[in-house]
Amino acid sequence: MIVRDLDDALKSRRHVVSKGWESTRLLLKDDRMGYSFHITKIHAGAELPMHYKNHLECVYCMSGQGSIEDLATGEIHEIRPGVMYALDKNDRHVLRGTTEMMMACVFNPPLNGLEVHDETGAYALEAETV
Amino acid sequence: MIVRDLDDALKSRRHVVSKGWESTRLLLKDDRMGYSFHITKIHAGAELPMHYKNHLECVYCMSGQGSIEDLATGEIHEIRPGVMYALDKNDRHVLRGTTEMMMACVFNPPLNGLEVHDETGAYALEAETV
Repeated sequence: MIVRDLDDALKSRRHVVSKGWESTRLLLKDDRMGYSFHITKIHAGAELPMHYKNHLECVYCMSGQGSIEDLATGEIHEIRPGVMYALDKNDRHVLRGTTEMMMACVFNPPLNGLEVHDETGAYALEAETV
Repeated sequence: MIVRDLDDALKSRRHVVSKGWESTRLLLKDDRMGYSFHITKIHAGAELPMHYKNHLECVYCMSGQGSIEDLATGEIHEIRPGVMYALDKNDRHVLRGTTEMMMACVFNPPLNGLEVHDETGAYALEAETV
């Protein structure tokens, strides 16, 4: 059994900070669960174009307000607590934070640890481990 | 892209109620993400012996207080907002809710839909779909 506390993980290499977001990776590939699990803060005012070509991500909004734009269709979906989106088609999208948002995120395959988005908005498959 | 709202799912067959807990399954096997994702309410005072022999589950506490007992070691870990546990060894455990707790849960392999625990505290691999 693995037990981890967000407060501890925030002070470790599990916590990754980038432009407009920061993410604490509570489960990673080497935990051998078959997925990784992260708690991610989207900053207020952030506008994040992303394209996870190599991963199937789902995101659940725990707090805050924002939107997700599906770049294939132009549709914009409101994000608020209780809304989940899943990028089952590796969907190109833009995530916008109207306020700060706290999200629970799952990735398959699991992240290695220190991924940040590359120039195409993707995570590489074999990034450095924590 | 799949977008689902907990409020809608609560009124559908995605919402499963059992003794001491209820769970809303926002992602299931037929969503083809490789995992399922659920928002689960543990009732105050619940004491739930479980043994997921067929699944690797992680659980993140969003609100409430309780504990998890690892039946292999006897260790008891406090659960409060920000604590995650992962049953990477299909660990036999008892989950206790001191207060009502809201949890985000991930299962690999994904649940089909209508699983409730069998007499051994497990979910079968091929339960009925929603």
